[in-house]
Amino acid sequence: MKKIDVTEAIILAKKERNLTWEGIAAELGMGTVWVTSACLGMNSMPEAVAEKLCAYLELPEGAKAALMEYPTKAWDKEVPQDPLIYRLYEVVGVYGDTLKEVIQEKFGDGIMSAIDFTMDVAKEENPKGDRVVLTLNGKFLPYKAW
Amino acid sequence: MKKIDVTEAIILAKKERNLTWEGIAAELGMGTVWVTSACLGMNSMPEAVAEKLCAYLELPEGAKAALMEYPTKAWDKEVPQDPLIYRLYEVVGVYGDTLKEVIQEKFGDGIMSAIDFTMDVAKEENPKGDRVVLTLNGKFLPYKAW
Amino acid sequence: MKKIDVTEAIILAKKERNLTWEGIAAELGMGTVWVTSACLGMNSMPEAVAEKLCAYLELPEGAKAALMEYPTKAWDKEVPQDPLIYRLYEVVGVYGDTLKEVIQEKFGDGIMSAIDFTMDVAKEENPKGDRVVLTLNGKFLPYKAW
Amino acid sequence: MKKIDVTEAIILAKKERNLTWEGIAAELGMGTVWVTSACLGMNSMPEAVAEKLCAYLELPEGAKAALMEYPTKAWDKEVPQDPLIYRLYEVVGVYGDTLKEVIQEKFGDGIMSAIDFTMDVAKEENPKGDRVVLTLNGKFLPYKAW
Amino acid sequence: MKKIDVTEAIILAKKERNLTWEGIAAELGMGTVWVTSACLGMNSMPEAVAEKLCAYLELPEGAKAALMEYPTKAWDKEVPQDPLIYRLYEVVGVYGDTLKEVIQEKFGDGIMSAIDFTMDVAKEENPKGDRVVLTLNGKFLPYKAW
Amino acid sequence: MKKIDVTEAIILAKKERNLTWEGIAAELGMGTVWVTSACLGMNSMPEAVAEKLCAYLELPEGAKAALMEYPTKAWDKEVPQDPLIYRLYEVVGVYGDTLKEVIQEKFGDGIMSAIDFTMDVAKEENPKGDRVVLTLNGKFLPYKAW
Amino acid sequence: MKKIDVTEAIILAKKERNLTWEGIAAELGMGTVWVTSACLGMNSMPEAVAEKLCAYLELPEGAKAALMEYPTKAWDKEVPQDPLIYRLYEVVGVYGDTLKEVIQEKFGDGIMSAIDFTMDVAKEENPKGDRVVLTLNGKFLPYKAW
Amino acid sequence: MKKIDVTEAIILAKKERNLTWEGIAAELGMGTVWVTSACLGMNSMPEAVAEKLCAYLELPEGAKAALMEYPTKAWDKEVPQDPLIYRLYEVVGVYGDTLKEVIQEKFGDGIMSAIDFTMDVAKEENPKGDRVVLTLNGKFLPYKAW
Amino acid sequence: MKKIDVTEAIILAKKERNLTWEGIAAELGMGTVWVTSACLGMNSMPEAVAEKLCAYLELPEGAKAALMEYPTKAWDKEVPQDPLIYRLYEVVGVYGDTLKEVIQEKFGDGIMSAIDFTMDVAKEENPKGDRVVLTLNGKFLPYKAW
Amino acid sequence: MKKIDVTEAIILAKKERNLTWEGIAAELGMGTVWVTSACLGMNSMPEAVAEKLCAYLELPEGAKAALMEYPTKAWDKEVPQDPLIYRLYEVVGVYGDTLKEVIQEKFGDGIMSAIDFTMDVAKEENPKGDRVVLTLNGKFLPYKAW
Repeated sequence: MKKIDVTEAIILAKKERNLTWEGIAAELGMGTVWVTSACLGMNSMPEAVAEKLCAYLELPEGAKAALMEYPTKAWDKEVPQDPLIYRLYEVVGVYGDTLKEVIQEKFGDGIMSAIDFTMDVAKEENPKGDRVVLTLNGKFLPYKAW
Repeated sequence: MKKIDVTEAIILAKKERNLTWEGIAAELGMGTVWVTSACLGMNSMPEAVAEKLCAYLELPEGAKAALMEYPTKAWDKEVPQDPLIYRLYEVVGVYGDTLKEVIQEKFGDGIMSAIDFTMDVAKEENPKGDRVVLTLNGKFLPYKAW
Repeated sequence: MKKIDVTEAIILAKKERNLTWEGIAAELGMGTVWVTSACLGMNSMPEAVAEKLCAYLELPEGAKAALMEYPTKAWDKEVPQDPLIYRLYEVVGVYGDTLKEVIQEKFGDGIMSAIDFTMDVAKEENPKGDRVVLTLNGKFLPYKAW
Repeated sequence: MKKIDVTEAIILAKKERNLTWEGIAAELGMGTVWVTSACLGMNSMPEAVAEKLCAYLELPEGAKAALMEYPTKAWDKEVPQDPLIYRLYEVVGVYGDTLKEVIQEKFGDGIMSAIDFTMDVAKEENPKGDRVVLTLNGKFLPYKAW
Repeated sequence: MKKIDVTEAIILAKKERNLTWEGIAAELGMGTVWVTSACLGMNSMPEAVAEKLCAYLELPEGAKAALMEYPTKAWDKEVPQDPLIYRLYEVVGVYGDTLKEVIQEKFGDGIMSAIDFTMDVAKEENPKGDRVVLTLNGKFLPYKAW
Repeated sequence: MKKIDVTEAIILAKKERNLTWEGIAAELGMGTVWVTSACLGMNSMPEAVAEKLCAYLELPEGAKAALMEYPTKAWDKEVPQDPLIYRLYEVVGVYGDTLKEVIQEKFGDGIMSAIDFTMDVAKEENPKGDRVVLTLNGKFLPYKAW
Repeated sequence: MKKIDVTEAIILAKKERNLTWEGIAAELGMGTVWVTSACLGMNSMPEAVAEKLCAYLELPEGAKAALMEYPTKAWDKEVPQDPLIYRLYEVVGVYGDTLKEVIQEKFGDGIMSAIDFTMDVAKEENPKGDRVVLTLNGKFLPYKAW
Repeated sequence: MKKIDVTEAIILAKKERNLTWEGIAAELGMGTVWVTSACLGMNSMPEAVAEKLCAYLELPEGAKAALMEYPTKAWDKEVPQDPLIYRLYEVVGVYGDTLKEVIQEKFGDGIMSAIDFTMDVAKEENPKGDRVVLTLNGKFLPYKAW
Repeated sequence: MKKIDVTEAIILAKKERNLTWEGIAAELGMGTVWVTSACLGMNSMPEAVAEKLCAYLELPEGAKAALMEYPTKAWDKEVPQDPLIYRLYEVVGVYGDTLKEVIQEKFGDGIMSAIDFTMDVAKEENPKGDRVVLTLNGKFLPYKAW
Repeated sequence: MKKIDVTEAIILAKKERNLTWEGIAAELGMGTVWVTSACLGMNSMPEAVAEKLCAYLELPEGAKAALMEYPTKAWDKEVPQDPLIYRLYEVVGVYGDTLKEVIQEKFGDGIMSAIDFTMDVAKEENPKGDRVVLTLNGKFLPYKAW
């Protein structure tokens, strides 16, 4: 069983049981963004979590092993086209140099890790229109001199 | 005077007076990310803010008008190469589909605006290594049916 | 059932019953451009509209759910090749900077939304050759300072 | 004198006299979009219009000839990055196939000319936020069989 | 039946009956280049011509409708690789600016239409090696000022 | 003196004396397209022609040698953007496979040379709008088996 | 039968009979490079050669016609990745301008034909390591002035 | 002094003294292709050769050191456009897989070195048109198993 | 049997027997990196090694021949996206010019071979986090002057 | 003073004093690769090291500050062309998937850091030709589940 097949099985089970990513994540006691990304095949699950998910959604045999596999991360286009995703890319383009200035002013020469990293999505209610709040949290890694 | 010239003048004044972006932003009573981006030429400043900045840094004549101009936003490479910026692009690549799932589950069919949008950088102290916390806050825009 | 399968089913039904996009749209009480784009899988349909369409064209079970799904918008080539579509791209290329000047002169710093957006196609009869009239109507979104 | 030099001279004169593109166009008795595009070097001006503009803005000698020259139209990036312009490109991407369906249903096999073509920008006031209205008007050109 | 299936059916019939494109075109009373392009799916056929072709080659049912459909024109690579086709692209590259100079000197500011357009291939016999003669004939379209 | 400098000198002289490419070519007894391309730096001139041109336009010393140099042919973009030139590229895209079929049916396996090649532009008057007629004439080169 | 099927059939027969390209070419009385390229589908075979090959390898019916067809030459990547092939591309990159200088110094303004062209591979034994010797032989084609 | 300046100085001296690359190479006792490439800055010269060249052409001080520097090899476009150079690229495209088959059949798994490599250009006189003969000679490098 | 099929068979056998690449390599008496690359189809195996592997993993008939075949090396994207692989590409980008300086200072003008080449991965234990140690070992190849 | 100006000053001083990167690094008590990369502007120097270097090479005022600045890392081409650097890119292409397999087998799901990273170049003498030995040493970073 390949990661892509588990993803399809999960999406099917989710539809049939009328679940949400948020609900599944709560069931597993993990964050919604991480759980969704692991279900979509972009992160590997630790054994205990994979086991819980397989039991909860009654996934077929082989699903646990596939969820635990280390994925080869890849995405289709260098510049994403779907408007929701493109706007994130636009933010990186418009604010990239700004973030470099501000982060390195605060932390020194180095980067925010995308590996030792977590992310969260929240909804901020607002009478003029609700707002999406994304929080990215990554370890600062200083460059090494040797 | 062009935006790029104002940017150079600001960076020079900032170095000579040993200021930080955070300090300049506090002086103006605005957010650090927004002030930095406007100083780098990626956002236009309202007149009152531009005036305050020109007075504070004693910028040359013409600076105020240039800071108020509406920029043509552009960035150099489709895939950014500087490691700090690339990691942000990588996050968009790895988590793009996940964010689409999670945001649209919470809000319906639509996008997070990159225009009616704010961003903040914070430092989370941590004995295992401090962490960078980015917060993106954008209005949700539902697609229109007509 | 996937969006692409519904699209095929709709096109088949449309051919067999000798319908037009304009006729289908009138039946649904919605705009022709929007209805066509939703039928081609580029917009999601509200439940009531999807239901009406399924009944009108006697689409198979599962079609309603697929029409209501939020699409991942994507298109094939960065520079479109079909002459009808390329000419639109050429208009964006030739008049892009002009539109930025004229729109921002009228509205301030910001953009025309492509999300809170409608579009219409009309025919203008003309003895020297009929003319195509496209009307794009998008909410103006001002940039935020924070 | 090259087109780019005339553009700079026009922009300078416009700033100094505090004019708008709309005002200049009204003075010349032509449309705002066309006048702006010709001033930015993307269209050639008929002699009478060029003469009027030179007189009105007191442009230097050589400006008239440069305004009348036939431009080589070119634009910088295949996928534009400035958000205002990118949204137009996104509209072409999302609605390209739809427009092909709807236009050819109304007119037959052919295209909307981008040469025998006019465009207009209007402001639609709206309590929920003003709206940008773009109108594109191009002659329909049927493909020839021979 | 799709255009690509008709193309295959035509090529098969052409081989079996040992026909040439020139012969088929003569039978239909149309130009060889146009007939070939329509058979390859790059142009739509008027009903009368499609009917004649179907009868002549005894094409299967559904072929007529497919031949009459308006094609979405697309080609594989931005820079074609087959040497015969690449040489044409090379001609556009080497002589593009020259043709712009010469055509606009003769006709004014505008373009040669690729829609209201015909093309012909002839053989010029020559003792030093026969020569290919391509004739392109397109309506001149002047740019519009408005 | 480089080819690009000669080109500028020629264009200046042409403007000052109010000449046309057609007139210059007639003076030299050569074709308009070839003369224009050589003046734009895309072909080398035989000594006698270069001499005649230098005398006719009173070009500066060094012009003759530069006109005779073998150019390195290059053009800016893989997909040309100026509408007049793009339409030629579109013709290659739409009709490339057709031309391969028709030429190779007439001549066998091989290509039309772009080196042993001439081209001509003519005006065909027409009450519905004048037409541009391009004639390309290239030696057929058969592939070699060895 | 398509060219690609013949290629597979030839490779299978070659393996089963333990033949080499060199041996097959000797059998046909043609050059190894040309025979290999025709078997891989990149050149068309004259009827007599195709017949001989079909008999020698007992290829299925339809193979002869497919071998005689004029191929549409295409290759996968603009910059080849396999190290053996990339090195050839690197040679073109490093020595391209040099070859232009040296060939045009010897022959005048023109090119080496890739159509009226032959190529050969030989092995030069050498105690420090054998050497590959490629010989390219193409007709010089002078540019035409007209 | 940079390599590019030496190249210009050499080309100037070569023109003034009416020399050829072949003549210069003979003077230095080295191959024409190698000498030309080193003069164009694509190879470094051993000290003795550089000295000889500087003396022969009376190059300015600093030329010797620049000729001896190790170049960073780079070329402008992935797909070269000048017809003479493009034809070489086309040969790599059309015959790349063929050369892989033939070379590896003769030598085993490995490549032809582009570093331990020489190249030569010769003229083959021929009544039907002279022919260019390129000889590439590179050490075969077998892949290592470890 | 093709290389890709052998790769799948090896991965299956490896999972079922719970083996590691390191264990398989030890069994064959070869390096882990080389064995893995050959199993993934990126290197050809000498007959003795292929035989041993087939016996050890009980691979199906045809596997030995496929393992011995000379691969056409290719990889998917010019800029790899998986973070583990991208970091290697980033190292080449950031340190490429540095390595050129340092290697050529130590060895003269030439390159490190990627053909006569070995590579090794080791684990360096470290209380602050274990470290990956990659060792690349390639023959230095001096450029040839001729 | 900008980083690029310091780089030029360093290279000049290095030439005039006939130094090597290795010698400069020894003087500073740091690794050769790191020192070279910092001198080329691809890493920032800690104050003490920058001070030492400025004193040693007698660099102009402003050099210390520029050496300490945090660089924006960028490199010219996605696929490097210089053969020495390209071979490294080729290694990443050919062995990328292999390294992923081997590293993750040894360490779990994660990556080798390119930030907490050191590199070394050594020469291995060998009678068949000396060998370049590159050692890359990066901290293993495990992916985080949250």
